[in-house]
Amino acid sequence: MENYFTIEKKLEGTLARAGVVGTSHGLIKTPTFVSVGTQATVKSLTTDMLKSAGSQVVLANTYHLYLEPGDELVRDAGGLGKFMNWDGPTMTDSGGFQAFSLGAAFGKGGVSKVARGDMVEEESTFEAPLATVTEDGVSFKSHRDGSEHLFTPERSIEIQHNIGADIIVAFDECTSPHASDAYQKEALERTHRWARRSLEKHQALGGPQQLLGVVQGGRVRELREESARFLAELSTSSGGFDGFGIGGSFNKDDIGTAVGWVNALLPEHKPRHLLGIGEPEDIINGVENGCDMFDCVTPTRHGRTGSLHTREGRINILNSRYRKDLAPVEEGCDCCTCAHYSRAYIAHLFRAGEMLAGTLSSIHNMRFVVRLTEELRQAILNDTFADYKNTFLARYKRAE
Amino acid sequence: MENYFTIEKKLEGTLARAGVVGTSHGLIKTPTFVSVGTQATVKSLTTDMLKSAGSQVVLANTYHLYLEPGDELVRDAGGLGKFMNWDGPTMTDSGGFQAFSLGAAFGKGGVSKVARGDMVEEESTFEAPLATVTEDGVSFKSHRDGSEHLFTPERSIEIQHNIGADIIVAFDECTSPHASDAYQKEALERTHRWARRSLEKHQALGGPQQLLGVVQGGRVRELREESARFLAELSTSSGGFDGFGIGGSFNKDDIGTAVGWVNALLPEHKPRHLLGIGEPEDIINGVENGCDMFDCVTPTRHGRTGSLHTREGRINILNSRYRKDLAPVEEGCDCCTCAHYSRAYIAHLFRAGEMLAGTLSSIHNMRFVVRLTEELRQAILNDTFADYKNTFLARYKRAE
Repeated sequence: MENYFTIEKKLEGTLARAGVVGTSHGLIKTPTFVSVGTQATVKSLTTDMLKSAGSQVVLANTYHLYLEPGDELVRDAGGLGKFMNWDGPTMTDSGGFQAFSLGAAFGKGGVSKVARGDMVEEESTFEAPLATVTEDGVSFKSHRDGSEHLFTPERSIEIQHNIGADIIVAFDECTSPHASDAYQKEALERTHRWARRSLEKHQALGGPQQLLGVVQGGRVRELREESARFLAELSTSSGGFDGFGIGGSFNKDDIGTAVGWVNALLPEHKPRHLLGIGEPEDIINGVENGCDMFDCVTPTRHGRTGSLHTREGRINILNSRYRKDLAPVEEGCDCCTCAHYSRAYIAHLFRAGEMLAGTLSSIHNMRFVVRLTEELRQAILNDTFADYKNTFLARYKRAE
Repeated sequence: MENYFTIEKKLEGTLARAGVVGTSHGLIKTPTFVSVGTQATVKSLTTDMLKSAGSQVVLANTYHLYLEPGDELVRDAGGLGKFMNWDGPTMTDSGGFQAFSLGAAFGKGGVSKVARGDMVEEESTFEAPLATVTEDGVSFKSHRDGSEHLFTPERSIEIQHNIGADIIVAFDECTSPHASDAYQKEALERTHRWARRSLEKHQALGGPQQLLGVVQGGRVRELREESARFLAELSTSSGGFDGFGIGGSFNKDDIGTAVGWVNALLPEHKPRHLLGIGEPEDIINGVENGCDMFDCVTPTRHGRTGSLHTREGRINILNSRYRKDLAPVEEGCDCCTCAHYSRAYIAHLFRAGEMLAGTLSSIHNMRFVVRLTEELRQAILNDTFADYKNTFLARYKRAE
């Protein structure tokens, strides 16, 4: 499926573009935000709610589904989409990131990893988030029951073929931002060997799934560009990667640098997914720097703690000022929560400890982020991107 | 509103009837099961899900809403239905039962109450579930923050007028089944005085709400009949009660005795609500013994713990036998959960600790109980009640 990505419009003077990705379960209009359904469910939301929020794609985590309920059960149930009642496009990640950040190392030679709390859905229950990396792959203990497991590129691809998502991801090592340059380089070269092994296994298994290669290299320009060139080369050959994931631990400033370096080199005619990014400013910068897809747990995680997106930044609905506030979370928002419920009601649900609190808040946050990507897409198509971006960022403040 | 209840058909040889209750927010076809939305939300369900499950009425608890977010806020938000986005009929209870079972007593003269775990939505966080009863009303401390409160019949009615449900309930004392006969008699006489005070306050406040008088009297036939006669008399006079609640702590056998004694004496042309009952056999027996409406927290409470209704009785979805079971919870069930999800998926959600587990299970359990009442109604209309009952009870076993 060489040409399954169509670019509708490129935004002059930037790397931004609007496009359409084709999958076996329908089209994905880009730029877009992918909902994260870690364990084959987007926390606190039904798939109908996701549809209403405008979500086009759900990404599940390979690490989690492999451990529970098991990838073979998901296969037997008809694949991820059927299992979780989502008839649109689906994705899985490679499992590598969670094996490092959630799995505990066993045996000798463990490599210390920094667990990045804002990028993982759950904290590890083990004291030290360690995993053992060898040329073969990553050994780890389950965060659920301590059982021992090994992910290799081949095993990751096999598991992802069982889970059966439309878009899957090559096995990679996501290094800590605190790792030395020497370790970054060593890890990157291994990740490239793993990319090749992932691709070979994927081709051997066959089928309609699309495979993304993952660009790594931390904040080191040389490594990022090396990684982009390596994957680009592997993808221009017939049967190469169908698109690219951009991995790493990013802060706000990295989007304009590391992400831009990479997208300037990656082949234009394949989609690019910026892994684990969900803050509004980061999405805007990511789009401007050539990314087509984004995913993050933050809309639902923030939602469950009462932190709600507005155009002025996130508000904490538990603040006493909202207790008797009968206005919707955000005037002008077209989500189901804002259409039917007041801030006072949602604040009441949080105070009362009711599950619906997290659900209504997550509906709003998901719609907010998805709508942002819809508007960015429209701004590219209409040539109003700079205006849109400036207006948005002038109003938007980081969370209360 | 003397004639707001229309009997469509009476089942010969029993007290059962099919009817229609009119309210300001639409008709209620009876017999029916009322969803309990304790804190202005039916736990784990949206109002759309309730609609899909066939729910016609939502009952909220006056005690809870009075404490959080406060009845005046609910009034200012446009009343219970508007506050929680439910456009159908609503009910509140009197608050008496929760003040006794959740509130902690202060001062002297506390009367010991037995908290009935299967009838209250939350356990009291206080050591002894005590409240102080005087002729005036019930003094209690909030289970939330220990603040002191007094419910009188007048205050209960005033709060219920603020909350603004279509059907409200006279303030009563629900005695422990372990109370002495002497205490039962004393409490019943007080409850009757409170009924009169509730009615007077309700009439003074005016408006379209309908008020139910509550029959008490424990398991003592003489007291139950006295209570039914007292309320019947108060209701034949102009401006009396619009219907009746039957309160108390019932076991399976009481439905055919205590409930039957009462309904044989209550005026036929007003609806009767059996308070706090939700087990299938009890609903069937309640309908046969003349009850029109039922409410209970069990469909959602059982749902959240993975105990799912089937025609053979409740199953525990966490039993390992369902781990790879790709069948729906119940073949032939018309609920949204059974239409789209497998037992294996729901079992996975529980194992994974996902909120959707309780939601999907509660959808099924709510539909099961509501559908049972729909089928009982149809069986009365079709003169097939005895067959339906015998077939249902022959299959149904108490929970695993």
